[in-house]
Amino acid sequence: MKIAYQGEPGAFSEAAARRVDHHAEPVPCRSFEEVFETVEADKAAYGVLPIENSIGGSIHRNYDLLLEHQLPIVAEVELPVVHHLLALPGATLNGLKRVYSHPQGLAQCERFLRTLTGVEIIATYDTAGSAKMVADAGLKDAAAIASARAGDVFGLTSLAASIQDFDDNITRFLLVGRQPLPDAVPDKTSIVFTLPNEPGSLFKALSVFALRGVDLTKLESRPIPGRPWEYLFYVDLAAARDELRCTRALAHLAEFAPMLRTLGSYASWKTHEGWLPDPFEVVS
Amino acid sequence: MKIAYQGEPGAFSEAAARRVDHHAEPVPCRSFEEVFETVEADKAAYGVLPIENSIGGSIHRNYDLLLEHQLPIVAEVELPVVHHLLALPGATLNGLKRVYSHPQGLAQCERFLRTLTGVEIIATYDTAGSAKMVADAGLKDAAAIASARAGDVFGLTSLAASIQDFDDNITRFLLVGRQPLPDAVPDKTSIVFTLPNEPGSLFKALSVFALRGVDLTKLESRPIPGRPWEYLFYVDLAAARDELRCTRALAHLAEFAPMLRTLGSYASWKTHEGWLPDPFEVVS
Repeated sequence: MKIAYQGEPGAFSEAAARRVDHHAEPVPCRSFEEVFETVEADKAAYGVLPIENSIGGSIHRNYDLLLEHQLPIVAEVELPVVHHLLALPGATLNGLKRVYSHPQGLAQCERFLRTLTGVEIIATYDTAGSAKMVADAGLKDAAAIASARAGDVFGLTSLAASIQDFDDNITRFLLVGRQPLPDAVPDKTSIVFTLPNEPGSLFKALSVFALRGVDLTKLESRPIPGRPWEYLFYVDLAAARDELRCTRALAHLAEFAPMLRTLGSYASWKTHEGWLPDPFEVVS
Repeated sequence: MKIAYQGEPGAFSEAAARRVDHHAEPVPCRSFEEVFETVEADKAAYGVLPIENSIGGSIHRNYDLLLEHQLPIVAEVELPVVHHLLALPGATLNGLKRVYSHPQGLAQCERFLRTLTGVEIIATYDTAGSAKMVADAGLKDAAAIASARAGDVFGLTSLAASIQDFDDNITRFLLVGRQPLPDAVPDKTSIVFTLPNEPGSLFKALSVFALRGVDLTKLESRPIPGRPWEYLFYVDLAAARDELRCTRALAHLAEFAPMLRTLGSYASWKTHEGWLPDPFEVVS
């Protein structure tokens, strides 16, 4: 099964793809947009996208893309993030002049980075891509922040392991695709809606769920281009769409929401380990 | 009056600083963090920070910094954003190989950028900083997306004007500082709070405002590091803190919110033009 992901081999998204299917063939893409396009063109059955990190917050671009495209969410996977400082064999911590990583990778290792002196911190498009660059360019005075697997893939050694500021550093990934996953029992539903631009409308929207005991696990707002200070609301519900309380709440919301779309009703990994193969070893 | 801002001269933040005080002396800073530090060290009376763009959305880093620091919000300023494609005199649209700008600047001109072929798009730390780089390095085949004023400052000409995708492209800036602004009558209040990790708690929090007719103009959630999938909620209220309905709503929220802090009660520019001098011309 082919699963598209953004980044280079060794990216955390690639690890998430393998977590869905241990025998998956991960298909690397340059951008999140390309992940959607690859699945839409049937060059991969599914695409895997980071949507939120427990330290850095939401990956807002992917919220926008979920709306722009028509691929349903079919699963959610949580993956612990363990960062390493990777460099060419022979490099030393004291000899470092530059550290490369994705802005999220840099932000998640802020405390560790502050212990390095005289080192320039440079943002790149990808954690594993930074490891590739250090290896390909033979940069002896540079290091990349990326996964242990990225180090294995590009022949780099770990100058420092587990350098993320918080142990509880978890990324939530969404799997998108046209086909539902076999044996997956949905327990979450993601929706997006707009509201009339009038006082109390968000309160009214949340009431359709609260009054029926449907819990919200996440609320994210995104701007509506061309309509300043009006918002799209993205909500994750801790219920399957087919549950009566959920169906009724969504019908109630549709009574006054100018736009309402279900992005998917799906199984969340934490509660459905059954349909996942043995966990892929992310940390070496 | 010194006002600290992030970026180079010609940055939109500098224009916002001048909008607060036409005779202000803008103090450029490398980062948003440095803006806070400059005001805390009394090297500037105020700091100006972009908090939200009507196309790109929230500038989340500044939400985090408002909480980390203790500087109250004393005003809000809205500024229309007009982007230009700036290049060295003599450069042509057809001869361009690279376009530099801040990721927000690039995102806001996405449609225009798609009309350019064979051009590499490169993200930088600042719009005006990109203009400076093109000028300083004498890059004849490169352009920067920045303000008309950045072009004036760095001696670049505009190859294309008003290239933003939407006319209604507005950035909201916050002014932070220890002293309230003279003659400003507060009409907005910004707060941040946490909630018990139990079903319906956000609905309950919004009810304290909805049931008293206090309107929310913005709700933003940010992760709490080390507590996965728990959030800090940042809320803007369309009321002064001293209004009885607002005071009572905040007291009600404090009954069950483990943490509640007021970030400021302040005048919003749109409704208080009185205390602002004649508008600064952003677009030449």
